Amino acid sequence: MTTGKINVSVENIFPLIKKFLYSDHEIFLRELVSNATDATLKLKHLTSIGEASVEYGQPKIEVKIDKEGKKLHIIDEGIGMTAEEVERYINQVAFSGAEEFLDKYKDSAKDTGIIGHFGLGFYSAFMVADKVEIITKSYKDEPAAHWTCDGSPEFTLVASDKQTRGTEIILHIAEDSVEFLEESKIKGLLNKYNKFMPIPIKFGTRKEALPKPEDAPEDYQTEYQEVDNIVNNPTPAWTKQPADLTDEDYKNFYRELYPMQFDEPLFNIHLNVDYPFNLTGILYFPKLAADLQIQKDKIQLYQNQVFVTDNVEGIVPEFLTMLKGVIDSPDIPLNVSRSYLQADGNVKKISNYITRKVADKLKSLFTENREDFEKKWNDIKIVLEYGMLSEPKFYEKAGAFMLYPTVNDTFLTLDELKEKIKDAQTDKDGKLIALYAANKDAQHQYIEAATAKGYEVLLLDSPIVAHLIQKLESDNENLSFVRVDADHIDNLIKKDDTVISKLSDEQQEKLKTVVEEIVPKPTYTVQLEAMDSSAAPFIITQPEFMRRMKEMSATGGGMFGMGSMPEMYNLVVNTNSELAERILNTADNDAQSKLVKQALDLAKLSQNLLKGEELTAFVKRSFELIKS
Amino acid sequence: MTTGKINVSVENIFPLIKKFLYSDHEIFLRELVSNATDATLKLKHLTSIGEASVEYGQPKIEVKIDKEGKKLHIIDEGIGMTAEEVERYINQVAFSGAEEFLDKYKDSAKDTGIIGHFGLGFYSAFMVADKVEIITKSYKDEPAAHWTCDGSPEFTLVASDKQTRGTEIILHIAEDSVEFLEESKIKGLLNKYNKFMPIPIKFGTRKEALPKPEDAPEDYQTEYQEVDNIVNNPTPAWTKQPADLTDEDYKNFYRELYPMQFDEPLFNIHLNVDYPFNLTGILYFPKLAADLQIQKDKIQLYQNQVFVTDNVEGIVPEFLTMLKGVIDSPDIPLNVSRSYLQADGNVKKISNYITRKVADKLKSLFTENREDFEKKWNDIKIVLEYGMLSEPKFYEKAGAFMLYPTVNDTFLTLDELKEKIKDAQTDKDGKLIALYAANKDAQHQYIEAATAKGYEVLLLDSPIVAHLIQKLESDNENLSFVRVDADHIDNLIKKDDTVISKLSDEQQEKLKTVVEEIVPKPTYTVQLEAMDSSAAPFIITQPEFMRRMKEMSATGGGMFGMGSMPEMYNLVVNTNSELAERILNTADNDAQSKLVKQALDLAKLSQNLLKGEELTAFVKRSFELIKS
Repeated sequence: MTTGKINVSVENIFPLIKKFLYSDHEIFLRELVSNATDATLKLKHLTSIGEASVEYGQPKIEVKIDKEGKKLHIIDEGIGMTAEEVERYINQVAFSGAEEFLDKYKDSAKDTGIIGHFGLGFYSAFMVADKVEIITKSYKDEPAAHWTCDGSPEFTLVASDKQTRGTEIILHIAEDSVEFLEESKIKGLLNKYNKFMPIPIKFGTRKEALPKPEDAPEDYQTEYQEVDNIVNNPTPAWTKQPADLTDEDYKNFYRELYPMQFDEPLFNIHLNVDYPFNLTGILYFPKLAADLQIQKDKIQLYQNQVFVTDNVEGIVPEFLTMLKGVIDSPDIPLNVSRSYLQADGNVKKISNYITRKVADKLKSLFTENREDFEKKWNDIKIVLEYGMLSEPKFYEKAGAFMLYPTVNDTFLTLDELKEKIKDAQTDKDGKLIALYAANKDAQHQYIEAATAKGYEVLLLDSPIVAHLIQKLESDNENLSFVRVDADHIDNLIKKDDTVISKLSDEQQEKLKTVVEEIVPKPTYTVQLEAMDSSAAPFIITQPEFMRRMKEMSATGGGMFGMGSMPEMYNLVVNTNSELAERILNTADNDAQSKLVKQALDLAKLSQNLLKGEELTAFVKRSFELIKS
Repeated sequence: MTTGKINVSVENIFPLIKKFLYSDHEIFLRELVSNATDATLKLKHLTSIGEASVEYGQPKIEVKIDKEGKKLHIIDEGIGMTAEEVERYINQVAFSGAEEFLDKYKDSAKDTGIIGHFGLGFYSAFMVADKVEIITKSYKDEPAAHWTCDGSPEFTLVASDKQTRGTEIILHIAEDSVEFLEESKIKGLLNKYNKFMPIPIKFGTRKEALPKPEDAPEDYQTEYQEVDNIVNNPTPAWTKQPADLTDEDYKNFYRELYPMQFDEPLFNIHLNVDYPFNLTGILYFPKLAADLQIQKDKIQLYQNQVFVTDNVEGIVPEFLTMLKGVIDSPDIPLNVSRSYLQADGNVKKISNYITRKVADKLKSLFTENREDFEKKWNDIKIVLEYGMLSEPKFYEKAGAFMLYPTVNDTFLTLDELKEKIKDAQTDKDGKLIALYAANKDAQHQYIEAATAKGYEVLLLDSPIVAHLIQKLESDNENLSFVRVDADHIDNLIKKDDTVISKLSDEQQEKLKTVVEEIVPKPTYTVQLEAMDSSAAPFIITQPEFMRRMKEMSATGGGMFGMGSMPEMYNLVVNTNSELAERILNTADNDAQSKLVKQALDLAKLSQNLLKGEELTAFVKRSFELIKS
């Protein structure tokens, strides 16, 4: 029997790291600046607990391009390394210095936001450099060290005369990566990944006007001085306490996050939790554009102020991916796949927390300033409706702030709606009927008829509203939603009072025969009704159930195959209308059928069903009528 | 000065591999079955070139669950390993056995499809197992070896009494991965990743009816035998030559690829290229559903018959991601990010090749059976239009088969269209005017007017058509596209013949004043035109340029800010109509304004602009007119 130790072959692991570990080469800069940040925060921590007897000062990180020398420098003023530490931390790939550090100072370091991928992140430098140097001087009183490696496993380590504390990384950029010597490229990367990192990052200098001296002569020429060009904001809004931020601060931060966006956010939600996981962040409700698709992927995910991704699918509940803003958490695993994320327990907890927090905020916005909340309703409703349908926890809480607008622009909660309509809109079986329209224009005639009866008509025009009312009905016994054009006005909410038909049974039979001969089957079913004589003589209705199932089918769900069912309508003929009488009394067949056709055309017009050739003929006929 | 070798610390690399390298744990089965396939193909190669003096036979791979023992077995009958090879290949992580093999048999092995990630892929086993055994016997006459490792870098290696050639991998499934002991789970994974791998994969057995003996008695009971249950198809259609496949074969393969899909593909394109890269595959044009979004991610990407992903973004040109099918190429780098893929030279070439091949196929389909091609047009046009707009190489070729349907359901190429309309539709400045409609119903009156003049009207109803005609105009001098409702019929294609107005200048001035008083500004601009007296008295038109820019803006592109411009129309009043005369001659102001309003309503009806309250009032008025 042989026993032994698996020998990881360095020659083969190295290219692997270069190629696979970070498939986006540009990540190297994020990693190196992160390391520099860590080194600085470590020093801050050591000085704060009295372990390092040096001055922390106001350290910064500098990124510098040497285009001629084809080099990129990343310089920090942090903890630095002794030669011995270089050997330990750098030469042992994946041996995480930060981990050891955290282990040693466990309790006091917990809250300092020190992240640790040191060893590994550093090697990403070889994705773009064919030679890398480290010149570093520890905060301890030891000589500086100079480490050089050309990407093969061989390295050299010599003493250096560096006098200042901290670490300088020099990348000798490879031929195939010269893009990383472009100022605009590096500027773009710093802006993408390091915009909110906690240590100031200097990239070049800029000119700043000197204050005008009080005794300046009249022809005084403004004088300038060169100052460090700091490219990041080390203390972004989400790292502060809500109490320390004004509305204007939140708006400013929104503009900082989305400088190319010109809209104003509707409101924001400041997230801040320590237990059972760490998470901070600010979410904004933006004004939603027509195309919901475009809205997604706008929330940025950070880990301790380092940008990770703008794809938060799986972390934020689906219905909230339409929001904007930032989330920062050290507890979200990085560099792992979506499916892994979705199975992670911490991530699930985070998602639930965010859902709850958003619901609480909506409730307080509603309670504190209902008028303002109502004004924003049309911009937020689709998110909320989607949330009610997809997140049971959100649904539970949404009753308190979910609004149902009416065609008259008043907004009711479900409880208010029930209270308001209970007298007029309870049908003879004791069922409460909520009437709604999907489009004020298209269903105008039907809305008018309903409001004339004193009924309240809701305006529910989201694409997923059929699903929502289906759910509301199943959770609220004795409540039904019916669209205003689902039946004629006397049938929408059935009461006990019956209108007596002016026509005898025989006349009705005759009328039906006449109308059925003209009206195309099976699209239209003729239905004779004794209505108020002032109601429209011909009305087209579309039964609620079929239409709703078709709508649900169109937006996913509903009953199988309903989407491809043909449209079916009822043609309601008011037997008490003068027109019904006239049709019956017109002896001439031709004239009679012309009358029915015209009446049908008018009924179709009200349902936007008169189209194409029929409409052209109708318009032509109507012009003929008035031309002379 | 110190020099040294970077020491990759195994203790730290191991968890890294387990955690990061394959973040989807289920990948382990794909890797192990791939290894088994490689081992078998290697043996096939060695026997074929006479290097191995054993019988290749009909080897298979077996996957076996031992639920009680919490073990999963993967057994092949391939090349096997000697104890020495186990030490070399397995104990040295990332030391690719396949690479060395390829190196040795470089020339002869090139075409055998041997892929090589051996060392690395194997270690993915530790993602789900806390102990792994390898029992293996080489094709060489040497004793079998038995390797065991519990995930720490320590391993044991002893002799084994295994007599049959090949390798058996035994995974002792870890507590947190017991799902991989479920038959349904493993079946699902084999179906997802190994459905088309080149060596038969046995997973359990099934009963197969024995043929009924000729002398069977009347009460013969069917007898069954246990046979291997082979879960893959080792020779999928794309690995065969097009000449060996019938239409039915292609359709059957489509059903094999998409068993849950009930549609039939319209046609297929067989891809087959050796140089400068290797690529095979079959693409299908499916019938497009209404929602294009749903269509995407249907093409499956394979590497040597191993499933990789169904997200081919970046490999296939964007406009072809709406297709279905498979692409198989050893030249596409795996496990790398999208942005890396998009920059890869090989991938770009592949994308260009696919574009060219699709264009060639479309051309031959058009040439060989134009009638059939026309029948399929509505299902493929959106893909082609999108291709013309996004891929210059496709645009160049598309002229040969791109069709422009007319409202009468004839289909013309651009050249045929130009030829057909050149006599009737050249305007007085020598410009060729192609008329089109976006909707036969909505623009019926305008289409009727144009066809009455003998003009050809195209039916261009795709959402991106505005972009397409914009491009066609810029590439075809002296060709303009104008929608039928962009102006009144005499102005759509301006000829030299002028119609004389029956009204004097003074009368026209008066008429204009009367109409302008009624018609809402600035939405409508009143425009007096001397037209044929039989033409409609009032017509609403919408100038081409503004409308087109708004449409382009709505689908991305066009001029900045055009999307939010209000709709603007012209109200064309035909001064030669009888109605114009009547309006002028109506002395009573009230009656005159009623006439104009009714005429405006009718014109609006033809453009679907009469809505809501206006429409309700119009219908009510019209019912009044006929009621008695």
